[in-house]
Amino acid sequence: MFEYMPFNQEVGIEITHAADGHAEGRIDLEDRHSSSPLTRVAHGGVTYALADTVGGAAVISAVEDITPTIDMRIDYLAPGTGEVMLGEADCTRVGESVATVDVVITDGEGERLATARGTYKTGGDSSDSAWDAEETRNRIQGE
Amino acid sequence: MFEYMPFNQEVGIEITHAADGHAEGRIDLEDRHSSSPLTRVAHGGVTYALADTVGGAAVISAVEDITPTIDMRIDYLAPGTGEVMLGEADCTRVGESVATVDVVITDGEGERLATARGTYKTGGDSSDSAWDAEETRNRIQGE
Amino acid sequence: MFEYMPFNQEVGIEITHAADGHAEGRIDLEDRHSSSPLTRVAHGGVTYALADTVGGAAVISAVEDITPTIDMRIDYLAPGTGEVMLGEADCTRVGESVATVDVVITDGEGERLATARGTYKTGGDSSDSAWDAEETRNRIQGE
Amino acid sequence: MFEYMPFNQEVGIEITHAADGHAEGRIDLEDRHSSSPLTRVAHGGVTYALADTVGGAAVISAVEDITPTIDMRIDYLAPGTGEVMLGEADCTRVGESVATVDVVITDGEGERLATARGTYKTGGDSSDSAWDAEETRNRIQGE
Repeated sequence: MFEYMPFNQEVGIEITHAADGHAEGRIDLEDRHSSSPLTRVAHGGVTYALADTVGGAAVISAVEDITPTIDMRIDYLAPGTGEVMLGEADCTRVGESVATVDVVITDGEGERLATARGTYKTGGDSSDSAWDAEETRNRIQGE
Repeated sequence: MFEYMPFNQEVGIEITHAADGHAEGRIDLEDRHSSSPLTRVAHGGVTYALADTVGGAAVISAVEDITPTIDMRIDYLAPGTGEVMLGEADCTRVGESVATVDVVITDGEGERLATARGTYKTGGDSSDSAWDAEETRNRIQGE
Repeated sequence: MFEYMPFNQEVGIEITHAADGHAEGRIDLEDRHSSSPLTRVAHGGVTYALADTVGGAAVISAVEDITPTIDMRIDYLAPGTGEVMLGEADCTRVGESVATVDVVITDGEGERLATARGTYKTGGDSSDSAWDAEETRNRIQGE
Repeated sequence: MFEYMPFNQEVGIEITHAADGHAEGRIDLEDRHSSSPLTRVAHGGVTYALADTVGGAAVISAVEDITPTIDMRIDYLAPGTGEVMLGEADCTRVGESVATVDVVITDGEGERLATARGTYKTGGDSSDSAWDAEETRNRIQGE
């Protein structure tokens, strides 16, 4: 399912495992992923895209439904200069309306490159098509 | 309602306005709020408590229900060394299951001391009494 | 400079303005940016890559040096289903060692799609080549 | 040192261990810590104050200097309704200018109540007295 996401195919993100609130994924780093024209160091957006995708896979494996990301924080710990980035995600909370996920990105040799933590929607208005712009306007206008 | 929260009384947090997804609050700084025994500079926990409380007030004013905080990020921009800290919060999204809120903390003279952004639960399992520890265990054990 | 970043070229991120701690950028959305094979809705990683890049541009415009991202939080407010995503970033604090940046992503018609807030390194060990894995090991081993 | 912080004394936060980038702390929960007048459930600001303090203790134990918090994110996983909250913090990165810290808050019986992750200043303009408001103004005005 994640491989069929066009942007994941574009970037080369692969989900290798997803079950019971745990997911794993990888990306083989190429020069095109770099933030530098001189050397290969993964752009922060590449690391984030892997983190968000593997995090979402963990939630989907727990709730078996589409789960939009509500928010995510990423912390960069070391530059991604190797051949590969691996991601592992675990749900730390799964509720009716939201789930919380922890993600660790490593370089394939156990060195942590980044950590991420996100909140995903698990129920209610989970449709990606409309969200709640209309509802927000109504509520903050006191209607 | 917020004044009746014991910890808000303890710290001295006052909500001065809350309507239509916008809320304001304040705290008069005293030596006991300091993180230093030598000088008065607000402990990060004081600033955060104000931010979380005024943020929650903004959401409650929009949805008219109890709204637990799911997550919040705070960024400290300048030390709180004045007589007062003011907080203003605005909902940027209000949905069936979650709301997003932006908070700005100032020193009473327009200088920004901190910004915060949080996600609050607006529906579903909003009870504070049990949350979903049971549900999390079931989901991540594949039951 | 940002156009020369290989991954920005790959994704199609363009920085259109950067001066005095403020930056603007854009991305023309195509089907390949989607998280869905059925409809075009920007993958969260696309939105984030724009936010991180325009945020970095704002800091660089203030300090005139390379500024690695330390951490960033992104909040998704509405799905990116239009033709374009615009990003605007403003430094809220610029110090000797770190800067804080606020980013707003809109759809070209004023609707907010996401907000992001990040901390960037502005001095000290700003080299991307080694970071401080060695130093971390020494410190937490008490050496 | 942390016990001498007035607000920590006020709230009842105790640091029980701090060495080599790892720190532990606790707070004995009382009715005054509650966010509810009807039942004892720790106010989010209490949980955060413990997280920020134990996180700072971990960094100080690594760098042996005062370390202001730059930013912190907290995720609430379960309500703090027990007798005690325990905090454990570990540095995941310690650099010349910043450190990253992971904090876990539990209820004394192994149940996770919250997780937090923060960035702390470790060098450069670490003085709490002036920060860099002046410098920010100069930089974003292009001076």
